[in-house]
Amino acid sequence: MQNFKWHNPTAVIFGKDTVKDLAPILKADGIKSVLLVFGGKGTFKSGAYAQVTDMLNSSGITFSEVNDIQANPLIGKVRDGIARVKAGGIDAILPVGGGSVYDTAKAIAAGSCYDGDVWDFFTGKAKITKALPIYGVLTASASSSEVNSIAVVSNPDSELKTSINADVLYPKVSVIDPSFQFTLPVKQTVYGGVDIIAHILERVLDGDEGSELIDEQGYALIRTMIRVIPELIENPKDYNLRAEYAMAGMMAHNGFLSMGREFRGDFSSHRMGHSLSALFGAAHGATLAVVMPAWARYLYEDNPVPFARLGEGVFDIFDGTDEEKALETIEALEDFFREINAPTTLRELGIKEEDIERIAENASRGQSFGVLSVLEPEDVLEIYKLAY
Amino acid sequence: MQNFKWHNPTAVIFGKDTVKDLAPILKADGIKSVLLVFGGKGTFKSGAYAQVTDMLNSSGITFSEVNDIQANPLIGKVRDGIARVKAGGIDAILPVGGGSVYDTAKAIAAGSCYDGDVWDFFTGKAKITKALPIYGVLTASASSSEVNSIAVVSNPDSELKTSINADVLYPKVSVIDPSFQFTLPVKQTVYGGVDIIAHILERVLDGDEGSELIDEQGYALIRTMIRVIPELIENPKDYNLRAEYAMAGMMAHNGFLSMGREFRGDFSSHRMGHSLSALFGAAHGATLAVVMPAWARYLYEDNPVPFARLGEGVFDIFDGTDEEKALETIEALEDFFREINAPTTLRELGIKEEDIERIAENASRGQSFGVLSVLEPEDVLEIYKLAY
Repeated sequence: MQNFKWHNPTAVIFGKDTVKDLAPILKADGIKSVLLVFGGKGTFKSGAYAQVTDMLNSSGITFSEVNDIQANPLIGKVRDGIARVKAGGIDAILPVGGGSVYDTAKAIAAGSCYDGDVWDFFTGKAKITKALPIYGVLTASASSSEVNSIAVVSNPDSELKTSINADVLYPKVSVIDPSFQFTLPVKQTVYGGVDIIAHILERVLDGDEGSELIDEQGYALIRTMIRVIPELIENPKDYNLRAEYAMAGMMAHNGFLSMGREFRGDFSSHRMGHSLSALFGAAHGATLAVVMPAWARYLYEDNPVPFARLGEGVFDIFDGTDEEKALETIEALEDFFREINAPTTLRELGIKEEDIERIAENASRGQSFGVLSVLEPEDVLEIYKLAY
Repeated sequence: MQNFKWHNPTAVIFGKDTVKDLAPILKADGIKSVLLVFGGKGTFKSGAYAQVTDMLNSSGITFSEVNDIQANPLIGKVRDGIARVKAGGIDAILPVGGGSVYDTAKAIAAGSCYDGDVWDFFTGKAKITKALPIYGVLTASASSSEVNSIAVVSNPDSELKTSINADVLYPKVSVIDPSFQFTLPVKQTVYGGVDIIAHILERVLDGDEGSELIDEQGYALIRTMIRVIPELIENPKDYNLRAEYAMAGMMAHNGFLSMGREFRGDFSSHRMGHSLSALFGAAHGATLAVVMPAWARYLYEDNPVPFARLGEGVFDIFDGTDEEKALETIEALEDFFREINAPTTLRELGIKEEDIERIAENASRGQSFGVLSVLEPEDVLEIYKLAY
């Protein structure tokens, strides 16, 4: 097992009708004015917008708004928010939304404390050392952004979707009321669920022996997701199912499953998925359902053990050689993605064969990447072809 | 699922040769002098004392010592430490040890910021609002004290072993180097392991439907402990086994498994075990191995479901009625305790039949307690009799 550090300072307030519990915290922290960051009509439909603004109004906290944040959030919106903060009077950022909204809020929080252009943080030109505090309200589980220090943002100018990560970006508090997720579109429940599963798979399939205990925790999380996603498609307003989903969502990518692993996960599939989102705006979870099985099929024969163990821990696959178990596991995963109507091919994403080369080049950018198996640009091309 | 709050601010530095990583943190926090709290020769044998004092010396940090902390730590030692702090010049408390040492350090940290007698916190006469910061080095996993806000201390005057719990008692940093546990006596590995398992059982057996996901995490942790304890008895210096044990030790009782549960665990067995420790100085883990199966046998027929589910999740017990599965599960647990040479009867603890009444009275003190089943004083007496 590798040495590791664990420090997750985010305070989570989890449960029904908990937005009001933010009020005393904001008051105690001396917050007088916040920048509200949110998406579109989903924020109103879920009831989150009304509850948050009621809470702010009754606490005498003023707010400005940056809204219309979309999936695969754009750097332009981040710059809008920073301009608003720099105009003065804002003490904190208050995202009300899912991962895209939280990620935008984090980038605003950091960029507001920096004189240059915020994209510098994404290209590595500048380092994040300061950020405004973030108090968030989650309305869609998927990315764990509510409890981690990562933000993923897209820049159309450079066709790049990439991330920042800094300790100061942990939200100070996140309110997770699973009932806000009752009104999510089915697709978002499915794609968010795939994203949660993928965050776990990126770790347990990275080939690091790491910790058996952590792998077991990961398998248990995936079993939970495989149980709750199909049930939620049928019963989107079942509170306990939404709560289990939200809980798995926060554990999948908050650092917990990276304990004891050298590389803290593989994340090749994420990188290859990001290329699809950057070029075609494809939904993040959908890209993972497409890329991950192709990635797995491409390299399982040389690395069967983590796939075989996954099969034992999640799908009760105990018979056969490691190679046989690995293949059966990948098939079971694909079957599950199909069962919940997630796309498993590039074709289903509406992507054309002639675009594959450009997608691959955009993912690799001349570099190799990956942990379980280091992928050269030609490997990446083959994986996209397999995914087609 | 019940609403809950989760905020665990302790930073964990986990792995080999990590004591040195405390130095820059202490310096950055402006710590110039610490109170070192530790037990006895185990602290020297493990190498922890030398590494910690080298780190302090080379950082120019001075230290005073309170040592000879025993299992079931005593309030007298806490008072000694407080007197030392109040004499002046101490910025922080630095426990080097297991749960007893950490618990003593926490009580000193709180009592040093209070004008009255520290026992007031344990009786509820005073509330903990301030404490000196704690930077600890763990040398024995069991209680999760390294990552929680709880301290359990015994007072011989009142024959009471009881606890305090306050947010300010979370250690600021805990260094967990599993190799310090290579030299632990076998008994301590066994009893610490039983304690870790018991902390999980107190939750998954509290009868609260809570969260299936969290129960699954708990079962996975117990499976890990059942795997590693017997292996560690054979190979006490196996780093990966020690690391898995230490990781399970920190997850069992850091609040993680209480998420979504109304009462955050049952803890009747802990209370009954504490009575044995307070009156006879019995090792905490040993008392749990004795009390928990008796507690389970006493009430499983009226509450078979959590035991049956535990059997499915941990021992692969799938056949029979819930009652049958529950009984088989309790037997499997007892068999495991016997396999690792933990005592499972009061007799094995050297306790005499004529003492049982006094033990029961000391546990109940005229009150009923418990969550899965509320135990009246007469129930408690029966459970001790069953344990005899």
